[in-house]
Amino acid sequence: MTLRIAEPTGVVLAAQPHHDAGPSFLLDPPRALGDAATLRVFQPAAYPVSAIALRAVIDGEISTASLEAVETTATGTWWETRLTAANPVVPYRFCIVGAPDETHDVPSYAWLTAAGLLPWDVSDATDFRLVVHESAPTWVDDAIVYQVFPDRFARSAGAPCDEQGRALPPAGVDLPAWAVPMAWDDEPAVRGDLTGAQFFGGDLDGIAERLDHIASLGADTVYLTPVFPGGSVHRYDASTFECVDALLGGDEALARLSTALHARGMRLVLDLTTNHTGATHEWFVRAQADADSPEAGFYLFREHPHDYVSWLDVPSLPKLDHRSDAVRERLVRGHDSIVARYLAAPIAADGWRIDVANMTGRHADTDLALDVARDIRATMREVEASTGRPAWLVAEHGHDATRDLDGDAWHGTMNYTGFTRPLWAWLAAEDSELNWLGLPMSLPRLPGDAIAQTLRGYNAQMPYSSQLHSMNQLASHDTPRTRTVVGTAARQIVAVGALATLPGVPTVFAGDELGAEGLTGEHARTPMPWDAIEQEDGSRIDLDVLDATRRLLGARREDAALRRGGLRWLHLSPELLVFARTHPQGDTVVCLARDAVSHDDAPSQGGGADGTLELDLACLPGVRAVRERLAIGGVSAQISGTTARIRAQGPGVLLLRAER
Amino acid sequence: MTLRIAEPTGVVLAAQPHHDAGPSFLLDPPRALGDAATLRVFQPAAYPVSAIALRAVIDGEISTASLEAVETTATGTWWETRLTAANPVVPYRFCIVGAPDETHDVPSYAWLTAAGLLPWDVSDATDFRLVVHESAPTWVDDAIVYQVFPDRFARSAGAPCDEQGRALPPAGVDLPAWAVPMAWDDEPAVRGDLTGAQFFGGDLDGIAERLDHIASLGADTVYLTPVFPGGSVHRYDASTFECVDALLGGDEALARLSTALHARGMRLVLDLTTNHTGATHEWFVRAQADADSPEAGFYLFREHPHDYVSWLDVPSLPKLDHRSDAVRERLVRGHDSIVARYLAAPIAADGWRIDVANMTGRHADTDLALDVARDIRATMREVEASTGRPAWLVAEHGHDATRDLDGDAWHGTMNYTGFTRPLWAWLAAEDSELNWLGLPMSLPRLPGDAIAQTLRGYNAQMPYSSQLHSMNQLASHDTPRTRTVVGTAARQIVAVGALATLPGVPTVFAGDELGAEGLTGEHARTPMPWDAIEQEDGSRIDLDVLDATRRLLGARREDAALRRGGLRWLHLSPELLVFARTHPQGDTVVCLARDAVSHDDAPSQGGGADGTLELDLACLPGVRAVRERLAIGGVSAQISGTTARIRAQGPGVLLLRAER
Repeated sequence: MTLRIAEPTGVVLAAQPHHDAGPSFLLDPPRALGDAATLRVFQPAAYPVSAIALRAVIDGEISTASLEAVETTATGTWWETRLTAANPVVPYRFCIVGAPDETHDVPSYAWLTAAGLLPWDVSDATDFRLVVHESAPTWVDDAIVYQVFPDRFARSAGAPCDEQGRALPPAGVDLPAWAVPMAWDDEPAVRGDLTGAQFFGGDLDGIAERLDHIASLGADTVYLTPVFPGGSVHRYDASTFECVDALLGGDEALARLSTALHARGMRLVLDLTTNHTGATHEWFVRAQADADSPEAGFYLFREHPHDYVSWLDVPSLPKLDHRSDAVRERLVRGHDSIVARYLAAPIAADGWRIDVANMTGRHADTDLALDVARDIRATMREVEASTGRPAWLVAEHGHDATRDLDGDAWHGTMNYTGFTRPLWAWLAAEDSELNWLGLPMSLPRLPGDAIAQTLRGYNAQMPYSSQLHSMNQLASHDTPRTRTVVGTAARQIVAVGALATLPGVPTVFAGDELGAEGLTGEHARTPMPWDAIEQEDGSRIDLDVLDATRRLLGARREDAALRRGGLRWLHLSPELLVFARTHPQGDTVVCLARDAVSHDDAPSQGGGADGTLELDLACLPGVRAVRERLAIGGVSAQISGTTARIRAQGPGVLLLRAER
Repeated sequence: MTLRIAEPTGVVLAAQPHHDAGPSFLLDPPRALGDAATLRVFQPAAYPVSAIALRAVIDGEISTASLEAVETTATGTWWETRLTAANPVVPYRFCIVGAPDETHDVPSYAWLTAAGLLPWDVSDATDFRLVVHESAPTWVDDAIVYQVFPDRFARSAGAPCDEQGRALPPAGVDLPAWAVPMAWDDEPAVRGDLTGAQFFGGDLDGIAERLDHIASLGADTVYLTPVFPGGSVHRYDASTFECVDALLGGDEALARLSTALHARGMRLVLDLTTNHTGATHEWFVRAQADADSPEAGFYLFREHPHDYVSWLDVPSLPKLDHRSDAVRERLVRGHDSIVARYLAAPIAADGWRIDVANMTGRHADTDLALDVARDIRATMREVEASTGRPAWLVAEHGHDATRDLDGDAWHGTMNYTGFTRPLWAWLAAEDSELNWLGLPMSLPRLPGDAIAQTLRGYNAQMPYSSQLHSMNQLASHDTPRTRTVVGTAARQIVAVGALATLPGVPTVFAGDELGAEGLTGEHARTPMPWDAIEQEDGSRIDLDVLDATRRLLGARREDAALRRGGLRWLHLSPELLVFARTHPQGDTVVCLARDAVSHDDAPSQGGGADGTLELDLACLPGVRAVRERLAIGGVSAQISGTTARIRAQGPGVLLLRAER
């Protein structure tokens, strides 16, 4: 069943009044309580209105104001009002009082929220939000992240191995009992006991030696999954937080990597598990040995020493009890905490990704997740006061993070729900049998207008700054590979197009740019084939995807609209999505096609019998000319004045610039 | 513009899989952490599925399970699973994995949430919720409330008046400076200075004398707007909470009214303002007089004594500062608090409606609203422990209350957003010029399928128990009259039909049952025309509306499904809404028609060319027979077996019983 989802107002998207929280529509965003911002709405001429009203929630009560029409051109009218940030988060939306006439069939009453224009009363959940809480560091606005699973990225030049090429520990370091040495070209196991044990011998100096490749993609931030010693190769079961695993090169190697990154103007994000430790963790060992030890209070013993709460009942991952001030002081609070120490010299990391943030501090009738997050933010502020380097705080969160993103806790999340899932569901290979990211069914394949419902409706429930400062990932160390999900290079390039252009920090899991495949998170932790990369060997890596990744992320690096702009949806249909990133320096229009658009796909949006979409970009205020910026794959545009006739003859990405 | 809103799945509502939080679908609701409930989904045979999965959020993480098909009949299949209340609130929903075939075009993937069946990924905001927090008292499940504005309901037999019939204070009581004595038949002012001053002389003994009328409607609970002395006739500007206003008869009269109500098995709900007091309040007088007094810390002085925070900047309503433990102890905390005292003998009230609850404790960067609510709940529990009488706690809230309803604070709200607004928007008189409940525009008139979006989507964001225990009102002392909103008796009866049948506690503002009119909240505070009621004078009161109110509320009193059942929408169209209240003792099907349904209105739902809706109620599990229960106005049904052919030839209400 492919149901075409109609716009609830019956008015095509491009003709609808628009506001977003980007710099074209929200001027002077507030920095402190009492600051006033200017809010602007653009009303296309094709949508006549009699009035536009602001509805905000101040001190828990509705406050309303009328917008003033401040500038009218042939293509539309700018409306404006001011809104004071009387509270740290002020929800607001607009009531568009339409003035239908003989030629314009517009609703007489509709709410403009972050989820779109809706001709009925809606809850405040998708209201725009004026947020006073300090935002993420400004460098995050422009960041492109490259995610590295340290064991699988690169062995350093001096890393030892046996005659069969199997990894050996560095000189003077014992091979841990859990480790099963592997040769670099071996394929990781899909599932089973081996998955956490396969030791490929990648190390931190190996990463430092390969920064050219990372930079060549346009990435400027390296996010490392955990580097603390643990009971497995993924190290999410830390045995201590006091030092970096000697298998990876130890503290000095991490400091060298950090220095190398900073020397290039690049940044380093580390990974900390606050929900649990490993059962081999020195705290837990002491806690089990002595019920009266301070550490015994760090965990949730049902009956000491062997019955305790653990992550999803996995005994090797005992859960921390954040009701304990002592554990918070060791882990997250103040200058001596683990959080602080790795942000300070010599490691001088630039941020933390918090593992299992969604469960941290949550158990039975206790919910301290945001308290812990606020502790971490406060510690980061303290460190910044001495280092001058603001740090980024990102939460792992696999489902609905929006209630955790409304304030002064996390800067953002790994946006699996608002990015990964909808992109997968759109671009999935036909009849994929991959698991649907933890749900008991295989991956669905949904039309573009359906996935846009998630991209709009879900992300509308967090402040836009939280979306901008969340990680967008097509895949991670916890998921199958993008290429395996989408099945073809052509659709992977469309996915990368979305990654490079939608709001949020593009985050590439190392190897995705080569078209690497993998059926599960473990199977996807593929060692990087450096010889194939150096030789540009198209038989082993996908050079088209690599080239497209460089071009698309490169386009983002050059374009403030793609990095910092607002988001305006212009066309939604099963095979074709079109949106603008809105920016005072000019908007960038992004066309993503999953496949060829036939006549049937775009009947209500104008255009020719061949499925061409005719889009008059005069709906973008101030546009004088439109030019093509980049086209990859089967999408093309004929441009005439401000009108673009967009044709999709296969999967592809097209970027247009709307110039002022 | 009348846009028909398509079901996003393309499958008619009655054929969709269904779950609700009522007693047919949620068995053994949990009472304590760790209790397990049984969740059931009914899958009509017309919607083939390959699997149904539960997705819950436990300790902040997704937990999934597969449902088992436990019983299949010719009309469909029951699916079942168990869910443990591991947290105080466990959000859950179902993934319906469709099995489309040649004759059944169903989506292969859809989420069943409290907002309906959606074929794309949605946030957790509309998840069903398993709630462990203690619910409202069981008597609230069955309550029908009658709201009385004391000055305007009835003068007692002994109440004095002057020769022109203008009110006088009781013997020994001075007329306050603010009071402008009025004759009982005078019309209240629409707006202006007089509105708070017009003293009509209704009193508490007058209410006690008129309980027969209240009981005749089926109401069993009297909710009184404030009875404390104040600086106006509405008394939301209290000058003390220590006693009942002598103008109303004082403490003894309130105790007499309470005793009279309890003697009939009826209940009493009082009204307390926790956000502010009057500027004449003894606390504020002391606070202004002495900056070092304890009371000075009860308020938010910007500069003592004349610059202080007040409700919407109205100086006569200084805002309380709930950061002060002292004010909370006086007002809401513990046995000596105001909250406790009026729940205990001799007043022995059965609940509190909290005025301006949405703003209480909210100011700038302080948000203690739910802390205060929890204080009140805790105090109620303490009082209940000694009196054995559980009390109800209802918050005034004029916009989105859902974030305030997810836990252990308010039992419910005055559900203006999830009931009053959508009903008004559906049934509004054409071209009404009434203000849209505080928004800067006049009342819109929306089609039934649009208002059902609000009824479903908004109410889905609160636990169902919170909806059941909220007040549904068509009008209140703060709004124009229902009759003025809808314009005709016929549409008012439809509105009363919704009041009597939708989830939530029906609350009738005294006089609405007579077809009273009023343009504003103040103008609507009409004195009750007792002589016309006694004489059944159809020239002064609307006997049709009075009769319909009695019949419709009476139907609710006799029908557990209408009081306690779940809610299942069966048909949504501009002029006709059909839903079932689901209950193990049999479902009640409610048809509400705003106007005649023409052929064009129901094209996709089957039925004849005359606009007849053919609804096969075999979609209700276990139904053996359908019979008509009550019909008022222009809706009728031809019943054949389990099929109802529903015809709307004008506004009306039809109730059908689906018998098991």
